[in-house]
Amino acid sequence: MDMLWNGWGDPAEAAPLPGAVTALLRDLLGVRPRTAPAPALADVRLPAATVAPAALRALAEAVGGDEHVRTDTESRVRHTRGKSTPDLLRMRAGDFTDVPQAVVLPGSHDEVLAVLRACAAHSLSVVPFGGGTSVVGGLAPQRSAFVTLDLRRMNRLLDLDPVSRTAVLQPGLRAPEAEGLLAAHGFTLGHFPQSFEWATIGGFAAARSSGQASAGYGRFDEMVLALTLATPEGVIETGRAPRSAAGPDLRQLVLGSEGAFGVITSVTVRLRPLPETRLYEGWRFRSFDDGAAALRRLAQDGPRPTVLRLSDETETLIGLAQPDAIGAGRERSDAGCLMITGYEGTAQDTARRRERAAAVLTECGGASAGPEPGEQWARGRYSAPYLRDALLEAGAFAETLETAAFWSRIPGLYRAVRTALTDTLTDAGTPPLVMCHISHVYENGASLYFTVVSAQGEDPVAHWAPAKRAAAEAVLAAGGTISHHHGVGTDHRDWYVREAGPLAVSALRAVKRRLDPDWLLNPGVLLPTD
Amino acid sequence: MDMLWNGWGDPAEAAPLPGAVTALLRDLLGVRPRTAPAPALADVRLPAATVAPAALRALAEAVGGDEHVRTDTESRVRHTRGKSTPDLLRMRAGDFTDVPQAVVLPGSHDEVLAVLRACAAHSLSVVPFGGGTSVVGGLAPQRSAFVTLDLRRMNRLLDLDPVSRTAVLQPGLRAPEAEGLLAAHGFTLGHFPQSFEWATIGGFAAARSSGQASAGYGRFDEMVLALTLATPEGVIETGRAPRSAAGPDLRQLVLGSEGAFGVITSVTVRLRPLPETRLYEGWRFRSFDDGAAALRRLAQDGPRPTVLRLSDETETLIGLAQPDAIGAGRERSDAGCLMITGYEGTAQDTARRRERAAAVLTECGGASAGPEPGEQWARGRYSAPYLRDALLEAGAFAETLETAAFWSRIPGLYRAVRTALTDTLTDAGTPPLVMCHISHVYENGASLYFTVVSAQGEDPVAHWAPAKRAAAEAVLAAGGTISHHHGVGTDHRDWYVREAGPLAVSALRAVKRRLDPDWLLNPGVLLPTD
Repeated sequence: MDMLWNGWGDPAEAAPLPGAVTALLRDLLGVRPRTAPAPALADVRLPAATVAPAALRALAEAVGGDEHVRTDTESRVRHTRGKSTPDLLRMRAGDFTDVPQAVVLPGSHDEVLAVLRACAAHSLSVVPFGGGTSVVGGLAPQRSAFVTLDLRRMNRLLDLDPVSRTAVLQPGLRAPEAEGLLAAHGFTLGHFPQSFEWATIGGFAAARSSGQASAGYGRFDEMVLALTLATPEGVIETGRAPRSAAGPDLRQLVLGSEGAFGVITSVTVRLRPLPETRLYEGWRFRSFDDGAAALRRLAQDGPRPTVLRLSDETETLIGLAQPDAIGAGRERSDAGCLMITGYEGTAQDTARRRERAAAVLTECGGASAGPEPGEQWARGRYSAPYLRDALLEAGAFAETLETAAFWSRIPGLYRAVRTALTDTLTDAGTPPLVMCHISHVYENGASLYFTVVSAQGEDPVAHWAPAKRAAAEAVLAAGGTISHHHGVGTDHRDWYVREAGPLAVSALRAVKRRLDPDWLLNPGVLLPTD
Repeated sequence: MDMLWNGWGDPAEAAPLPGAVTALLRDLLGVRPRTAPAPALADVRLPAATVAPAALRALAEAVGGDEHVRTDTESRVRHTRGKSTPDLLRMRAGDFTDVPQAVVLPGSHDEVLAVLRACAAHSLSVVPFGGGTSVVGGLAPQRSAFVTLDLRRMNRLLDLDPVSRTAVLQPGLRAPEAEGLLAAHGFTLGHFPQSFEWATIGGFAAARSSGQASAGYGRFDEMVLALTLATPEGVIETGRAPRSAAGPDLRQLVLGSEGAFGVITSVTVRLRPLPETRLYEGWRFRSFDDGAAALRRLAQDGPRPTVLRLSDETETLIGLAQPDAIGAGRERSDAGCLMITGYEGTAQDTARRRERAAAVLTECGGASAGPEPGEQWARGRYSAPYLRDALLEAGAFAETLETAAFWSRIPGLYRAVRTALTDTLTDAGTPPLVMCHISHVYENGASLYFTVVSAQGEDPVAHWAPAKRAAAEAVLAAGGTISHHHGVGTDHRDWYVREAGPLAVSALRAVKRRLDPDWLLNPGVLLPTD
């Protein structure tokens, strides 16, 4: 099934905000109901596709038939942009400037190579497309005419090696499909990002996704053992061993390349046994600093839970107040900060880790909140994007952004980003609610994930832009990385160039020129075009 | 102090082989005593250095004085080649074709940049030099005249962050110096390769070293959080967070670049607390397959010892027989395979892991051999290269090579390499003893480390070459990587190019052209020059 074209997920799962919440948004943040309803897909009128008939014929030949080259309005609209809030707002506003001219669906690695050859022959730019869940402008290249390469037909498990605990997956597999195929053999990937229900294996690799259970299973880039990359100049195959001293790690050049170097046509991943037991629970800490110190202790000295997540005071209050009363949080300012700990594995292993972690958390000043907050988190773990749709529908603005840094920089980074968002939006007349959590920890640092809710400005996309810019500047100034797991896309490109530095970017551009000399792949995504 | 110029380590530590071993080498392998003694350093006569006086002046200016630019014979000889057996044999044979024209000793990052500018201005090739322990021809570029950049003056701890558990180290620090500086703050790197006593931090990073405690502390490339790279075109600084989704991981492009992209001038590493307890012990398994299955079980399901190492039947026999009777092993063919397990950490943690690992190993058919084999291994962990010197002195040939693969390919890889070495050397009239161990394990695979001892041929370097080629071909054919932790250098370059594939190599060459347009840095090391 397809995702909602101008929102998130399965339309049947959408839920309106309770009236009380709408009232509170109004009283607390000055949110006013939207005046114009969003257009219906049936009413969308696009300019006709401009791809030459000869090019369409070449594409059809590359993918074995006309039925796999689509130029109808619905296909084109459904492949327009990703799922950032500005993306959704532009779709709702009827802005179709980033619509592809055609959608091509290859069925194999060889067909991907043939599509790239056809695109080169006809000077067509190409945007690889997995689940379409980018929130950083990764599907909006800086080229007015392009075709989208949708990998959904490449959705097979190609090989599974139970001895090495590896599997070769095609890139178009959505995460639940991949988990289903692996579960039949008793294995799991353990990759559960918020986009889990829609995003694909190829997208996870291309954008360095990280899931909610990263403390236990690692990030997606840590799960990848080998890759096949189809480029206009040929094929790169990497990964003959878990680790090697044979030169630079080429896997790490493909991971995070966001479709700018080529199309990932297979991904060999590390497998873990399906857990016997899954157990999630809550802990309360007096402050975000106290909670963060406890996270750090577990990340550095163990034991490591599978899921480890800490909300700041504001996010804890809002979470407590949901779904029926955001304002009620005000009376509960002693709520402190909520931590979720999760354990997955054999019954013996989860019991052992849980017992030892509980001792550490208690020693760090935590108080057990029992299983209920953990179970509530697990039930709602994929629902935040639906909530965003409801907030947008109610006239509010809601967006997220994230970063990571070494531990000693986390407090300063937290303050800097929070202040930048709050000040910019307050100055613009829409004081926001800024919430934050840590959801990915490492021995040497952690991520920070911010959620911003405010009233929409007159032009909500333009209204948000200065706040996003201020947050990005704050990230760089405070020593963070411009993205811990969303990627670069076009939205973060200018800051990415500053973070990586001109010489490194120039070296990556040299790689791109070698693999994609006509600069057809995702122009302007990740790397600047000039 | 300096290493022995035509052998390994501190000459005071050298020990001759017992007479009985010499006799056994003769009876078992047909080893004949060498006829000509190795030349003394004082007798070496080199052709005069050809670097133009203006270039020498520019280099002296770059490093703040004449005393840091050396053209004397001893300095040049001590920077000739690395420590592979062919390297040592060539030195002993008085072959100085790979001698540098001068040795330059920069004292800082800025001085490294100044040296690179001077080299560019005077068209001088440059070989970065850490501990000089390369065993893959990493110090023998394909250029007749070059200068060596010795980083020994850059041996400071620049920063230590106990909260993030990170430290910034200069590249010329030898591992024991680095461990000493970190130990003063209660930390360790945990990187203990066989080259530990001599090799440097910069070299570990440039060549993707892996230490004997990699099961617990990880490989060196896994310890690196940030790097500074000085290139002829400027500086690359990478690593603002433990992990990031901001594009390809540039650290992983610098790691393994073997001096071909630039000179690593600082390395930010992950720290671990100094262990309270260190405990090593032995286990016996009926066969290499049984032992490997037990290793895999620990690597995949835990608990993970800090050191994990398994010798095959031949290495076990030889190890048992040392130092007094290699032949005695023949009567002890029931010795099976020896595994060493080591635990480092807090007293509680080592006790806990040891108890659980013992249960797993017993379940897998292992029999405890008590602490003695572990302690013996720990005592001798850095002594094998000394033993090689004694073997060479006695007229034997001894060399090592290593690879890695996914678990399901390990048995076939083991057989293929063993057969290639045995058959080639037997056909050449010098039947070898081929020993192997697994000393680095991962969830999805492991390394194989081979040691070969045989009689020397007439021209021992030329005699060995076909066996080395046969082993490398066997590695590629059986699905292994051409190096797990020694690197590529010039010795493995042709196989590395085949392993990585022409397009990937071409992309790396594009990176090199961008960073080193005159191809001054380590020409022919890692990447082919044409």
